[in-house]
Amino acid sequence: MARERSSDPQIVLLNGVPAQQVSPLDRALHFGDGLFETIACRGGVPRFLSLHLERLELGCTRLGIDPGNLDAIRSEVRALAGEVDSAIVKVLLSRGTALARGYGVTGREKATRITFRYAWPHETPSGSQDGVQVRTAAMRLGENPALAGLKHCNRLEQVLARREWTDPDISEALLFSSSGRLVSGTMSNVFIVAGSRLSTPRIDLCGVAGIMRRVVLHEAATAGVPVQEDVLTAEDLRSADELFLTNARIGIWPVRTLDGRRMPPGPITRRLQELIAPLLEEPADA
Amino acid sequence: MARERSSDPQIVLLNGVPAQQVSPLDRALHFGDGLFETIACRGGVPRFLSLHLERLELGCTRLGIDPGNLDAIRSEVRALAGEVDSAIVKVLLSRGTALARGYGVTGREKATRITFRYAWPHETPSGSQDGVQVRTAAMRLGENPALAGLKHCNRLEQVLARREWTDPDISEALLFSSSGRLVSGTMSNVFIVAGSRLSTPRIDLCGVAGIMRRVVLHEAATAGVPVQEDVLTAEDLRSADELFLTNARIGIWPVRTLDGRRMPPGPITRRLQELIAPLLEEPADA
Repeated sequence: MARERSSDPQIVLLNGVPAQQVSPLDRALHFGDGLFETIACRGGVPRFLSLHLERLELGCTRLGIDPGNLDAIRSEVRALAGEVDSAIVKVLLSRGTALARGYGVTGREKATRITFRYAWPHETPSGSQDGVQVRTAAMRLGENPALAGLKHCNRLEQVLARREWTDPDISEALLFSSSGRLVSGTMSNVFIVAGSRLSTPRIDLCGVAGIMRRVVLHEAATAGVPVQEDVLTAEDLRSADELFLTNARIGIWPVRTLDGRRMPPGPITRRLQELIAPLLEEPADA
Repeated sequence: MARERSSDPQIVLLNGVPAQQVSPLDRALHFGDGLFETIACRGGVPRFLSLHLERLELGCTRLGIDPGNLDAIRSEVRALAGEVDSAIVKVLLSRGTALARGYGVTGREKATRITFRYAWPHETPSGSQDGVQVRTAAMRLGENPALAGLKHCNRLEQVLARREWTDPDISEALLFSSSGRLVSGTMSNVFIVAGSRLSTPRIDLCGVAGIMRRVVLHEAATAGVPVQEDVLTAEDLRSADELFLTNARIGIWPVRTLDGRRMPPGPITRRLQELIAPLLEEPADA
């Protein structure tokens, strides 16, 4: 085995038991036939755990995967989070070991759960304060309503989009879909402010229904900030006054440059950052 | 471990060494970040091996995966094929163990090669003779030229399309893309005969550039049967006089019913079956 790296997980559990190996017949390996959740854990508590489990359960229903006992997943994530101050816990749930060759399923597959705990990444916290630099990806996302919204394991598009740049000063790339809709970043959702209008792309043709996206939509509505899910295009992006990214770990990142164009973080972005700040440091949902 | 099933592989090699386990950090498991080839082996010889390796190498180039030594793969497949009369050998080549969390690659990843040998499946050979029953899938494929043609490990669309039916008399489903183009079956390519015109969908927006598709295109052209790759629609499918499916293992399957409509195997389908028959039983390429 390769020597340990800081990016290696601290713990890997296979169906609840410490393990360093999985079956070469697992359908996630062959077909990306699975789902995952990446859960930020702070102060020993997993953040927005119920929302993560709700999305995982919905994904299982839509893909026809039996998730087994969700309470067991809940307990496992809590236990892993509770052992350290801060961590990232990733839960990968595959349809399980193949019971037949090929794409077909027998309906008797038993899901494989692999749970990883990683150290909270070392990084400068200036993204939230100063904003990040973002580019537009050349690659466009395929549109498939059957997969839209899910955090499934078919992620080659994101891998390829992330390979488009190597400049470490660029934090993220924004992606359009094949029909020209703005969708998201490679690992974040995007919000646009135009005048007093706050909006984020609909997740009906592609993209992931992000947990922090959902939190921001809810907090904005609760605080009386009008917000909507909409069909957005390159023109909406060009005419944006403010732009920000969301992700379960980072919360909100203002975008300070898009393809080199300067966009200083604006008042609506700052207001939303203030609204969600207490939720990020004091997990309400465990 | 579960008890052995007839569908279990006879042999699994991990980077050339017998193994029953892979790393839970493998990027194929997390993101479907890999490619595969499914090679029919007859008479102890892998069929169309050079074509399979050519497609694998092209896929590696397009995804930025270092395939390592292709001659080692060639030798391995030949050795596995040579030990038995008939078999299916699947080579799964992933980008390797993750060296960082997330989609980004470091460029230092070392590909993981997992090679499986399965028994040749027991099935009635009547598909080639009598034709098969086929349905149209409800799900449409997302379009992404960056992935089109490749036999990559992002196969949730095929898994979901295969889940649309359970009737064992239906052998395959035909899929359209999000913009309405006819693409392929879930595990086969499709050819249409209209009058004397033979055509198959272009593989420029989605779909897999199948090995048997390539063989049929070549053999037809060589024998003076006019054939073209084209943009085909539901209307082309409806007005087809003959329809057949291709796949590296099955060769050519005439379609005898499409969504219940009878389409007796026609003369051009039969002529192409005759043309490729010698290639299926006497592998020319090893």
